[in-house]
Order: sequence, then C-alpha cells, then structure tokens
Amino acid sequence: MIKSLVASSHIKKVNADGITDADDLLAAEEPLEIRLGFGKQSERHQQSISVTMRTPGNDFELAIGFLFTEGIIKNVSDVSQIKYCTDNYREQDHENIVRVELHPHVEFDLKKLSRHFYTSSSCGVCGKTSIESVKTICNIVSINDNLKFDAALIYQLPDELRKHQNVFEYTGGLHAAALFDANGKLIFVREDVGRHNALDKLIGAALPHHLNTSAPQHLLLLSGRASFELVQKAVMAGIKIIAAVGAPSSLAVQMAKEFDITLIGFLRDKRFNIYSGEQRINFNALK
Amino acid sequence: MIKSLVASSHIKKVNADGITDADDLLAAEEPLEIRLGFGKQSERHQQSISVTMRTPGNDFELAIGFLFTEGIIKNVSDVSQIKYCTDNYREQDHENIVRVELHPHVEFDLKKLSRHFYTSSSCGVCGKTSIESVKTICNIVSINDNLKFDAALIYQLPDELRKHQNVFEYTGGLHAAALFDANGKLIFVREDVGRHNALDKLIGAALPHHLNTSAPQHLLLLSGRASFELVQKAVMAGIKIIAAVGAPSSLAVQMAKEFDITLIGFLRDKRFNIYSGEQRINFNALK
Repeated sequence: MIKSLVASSHIKKVNADGITDADDLLAAEEPLEIRLGFGKQSERHQQSISVTMRTPGNDFELAIGFLFTEGIIKNVSDVSQIKYCTDNYREQDHENIVRVELHPHVEFDLKKLSRHFYTSSSCGVCGKTSIESVKTICNIVSINDNLKFDAALIYQLPDELRKHQNVFEYTGGLHAAALFDANGKLIFVREDVGRHNALDKLIGAALPHHLNTSAPQHLLLLSGRASFELVQKAVMAGIKIIAAVGAPSSLAVQMAKEFDITLIGFLRDKRFNIYSGEQRINFNALK
Repeated sequence: MIKSLVASSHIKKVNADGITDADDLLAAEEPLEIRLGFGKQSERHQQSISVTMRTPGNDFELAIGFLFTEGIIKNVSDVSQIKYCTDNYREQDHENIVRVELHPHVEFDLKKLSRHFYTSSSCGVCGKTSIESVKTICNIVSINDNLKFDAALIYQLPDELRKHQNVFEYTGGLHAAALFDANGKLIFVREDVGRHNALDKLIGAALPHHLNTSAPQHLLLLSGRASFELVQKAVMAGIKIIAAVGAPSSLAVQMAKEFDITLIGFLRDKRFNIYSGEQRINFNALK
C-alpha cells in the first residue's frame, strides 16, 4: 500500500450546459500521529503528542517541523531516529504513525507544547499571553538584518508559487507554503490540506539546510490567510518576511509587530498591503 | 473592555498607483478556553477541554456547538449553566474563558473527545478508523429523508451568503458557515477566523431551535473547503446536504458517502460538483 497525495472520485459536474459524469482528483486527507521517544538510555519513555489531519507525503518533515515550531527540538541534531511506527502493526495504520526518537541528552517537558501553554493556570488566556508564551520558548535574538525585497518582485510570487503547486493544480484543494530568496527564486514549497501542516512540512524540509540561521534571508509565502498560529511558526523558524495571499488576523499582526516581522496581506493582482515592517520592502523599482 | 469582531490597523497599500497610507480593519483573533464542570453534586470536577483561536463573539454558541459536535453533550438541556469564567479573574483573560456546567446526571468521559480518539491504542490511526470513531459517538439513525434542493437555487447561495457576511465584508478575513432551507432562505450564519469555529458557532446557535431534529431539512453552506473535520461536525448535527465553495478532501468525501450525505464542492460561478448523494439534487429547473 502506497500513500498517495491524491485520490480519485467519480462525480457529477453541474453547470449551464447540463449534468455530466466525470472523474475528479481529490487532495488526500489522513490522520498522522506523532509519537516521541525521549529520556535517558536507562529509562526511555514514549508519548503521543499530536494527531493532525494531513495530506500524506513529507511526513518526516511534518513531524520535524512540528517539533521545531512547538519548541520541543532546537534543531534536527536533537533527533536520533525518525521512522514510521510498526509496533503492534496493523495494515490500516500503515504510514500514519511517525515515531521520533530524541537523543538521551535532550530534555522533553510536555508543558513545552505551546498550543497547550494557554491552559496552564500561570499563563492566562488572551492574545497578549499567547504572544508572551511564544517569546518564552523561542528566545528570539533580534538580528539587525538588512534584508530587502523589491515590491515589484513580490507581485510575481503568487504566480511563481502556483506554477509549483503540483497537487493544487489537480485538486484545487490544498494550502501551500513556500520560501523564496531575495531574487524571487523558489527554494522550497510544500502543500497540505491543513495550512499549519504545509508550513510545518516546509520548515521541516528547510531545517537540515540550516534554515534557522539562513531564514532571515528568505520570504515566506502563504497561499491563504495569515493566522496567529502561522506567524508563530514563522517566528520560531526565524523568518523575517511573511506574505499571505489572504487576509491577516488581528493577532497575526500584533505578533508580527512584536517580533519585528514584515507582514504582507492580500498579495494578489499586483497589489498588497503592508501590516508591519515596511522597512524591508524596496519600492524603488515601482517608481 | 468590550470584545470586538474587528480590530483596526494602520497599513500601507501598495499597487500600480504607488504607496498610500490607510487604516484597515482586521478580523479579530483571540484564544478561547472552554472549561467543563461535571460530576455529581457532592463531587464536582472541572476540566479544561479546549483552547481554540477564535474571533470573539457568539462564544457561548461556540462552546455549545463544540461540546455537541464532539459528542460530549446530547443537547442543550444537558447544560445547567454557561458563563464567562471569573475565578482568579484577571483583566487580560476577560471573556476568553467560558465555563460550561453540565447537569449532575450527565456523564462525562474525557475519552469522549473525538479528536483525541485516534490516539487510543485500541483504535488505530487511519481514515477508516477516523470515520468509525464518529460512528461510535454519534449513533446516527438513518432517516429515509425526501429532502430535495433545486440545482438552480443552489447556484445562488454563495451570493446570498456573501450578503450576510458582515465581518468578511470589512476584513476579507473570515470563514463562514450558514444554514439554508429548501426555499433558499438563510436561517443562520456565523463567521470566524477558524472554519471549524464558524461551524461550531452555527450549530451552537441552531441547537436550541431543535436543529438536531430539523437539520435534515437544511443545507449547510461552507465558504471554504470541506475537510473531514467539517463533515464530521455536520454528521453530528444531523445535516444531510453540505455545499462548499472550495474543494473537498478525500476523507471528507469518504465520510459523506459513509453517512449518506450529499456533498457538493466548487460551488461558484453557477456551477458545482456533486461528490456524494446526488439523489437530493433536483435538476428539473435546469432543463
């Protein structure tokens, strides 16, 4: 059994010309469970830490990206092994459980899971504390970057992304996240039914290439809207410019301002809005 | 402090005409924690069961809809009280924690939370078991419904929805979920930065109006894509027709077929695809 990014379905197409039978391709969606092995050699523990509905493919990147953006690992070198789990193997679970083994020296505290941070009684529940919790785990060092992206080049990125969105092309059903360099060259792109998964996969793919030190040179393009969670993940990865084809939320903007990130929204039809960090946009070519 | 559905932000608009300063409205995003009070009068317990990033407003509906679609309550009558939590009150948490009290006779088992179902060792992790877990909690009685919606009427629903999407109109940043009757009349509409929240709010709003008995008469319209999770919530609410403006995922289609639900995708520009349950679409008016 090989997991596929797409599944076919027999459908009826309805429009002004009438009703026709057709075969359609769908974006595949399956659960993925991430299990973590941790602790000293003498007493290893296993903990299931996440189940997400994702499009199969790039699962190890997804697991690594998730662990990194949640602050559980600091780098890929924290991981000693990653594989599909085959304990108590059942055919139906095939390649839907990823087991990540941390090196014995890596400390793991379940409380580190940022999406559960808000529920701890010492934290409170509001946008401000959500942002504070990210600060606590990521210990961002403010880099005095000189990064600049040309506005005229930014216009072109959604078209460039679309060219590389293989599965979307067939299904119309996937979110994408992509990294571009300042020349507009696409470095990595990943797709998924869940936009947070697409970004986790992207970050997991880039991490072995020292993304967390080179990320300030890149622009992150999101095919949809920019939520708090997506900006949070970008912050964790050290990304300095985020451009979204859709609208940002209020907390996404607050977060971007707090971490001095350039946040662009509504990037489409040769126009965009800048919500934060305009100093990284070069307007000269527009004039 | 009053929570607002929108927040304003000072932005720069960039397009072919140049760069202009402007004020923009953003869809508000804040965390909401749902706490559950349960157990016999003599020994009450409290459990935090969810933190979601949502657009403030209709928070009680969101909590009720979430509890209902997760199978924790069977009806609103299971709830004795719902209010914003003011224990250990801090200004920053204002209206971001909802506490729902169940009647003493209502049994609550944390394992009932369906999105955690997959992680139990007895269940496995695959699309099939995801669907099976929904079957277990919802005990759907198959109703031999005679529901029919005119194809020509379905064409018009996205425009009708847009007219009622108040916050989207200003921010372009919200998902919507709406219920329509067979005459195309909009019954309820709710918006949120999270599409699962929009649907939970909608179901929470409709529930006191006996949605779970009248739902088979209605069509659910989703402003975005149809995922497994959204179809799952619709199944729990007894909804028989789902139409999405975007694409469905493979598991959404599997789920719809399994529960004999009519699933429509790509509903836009006077066309749509039927993925499941075509018997509920009346094509006569098209001919």
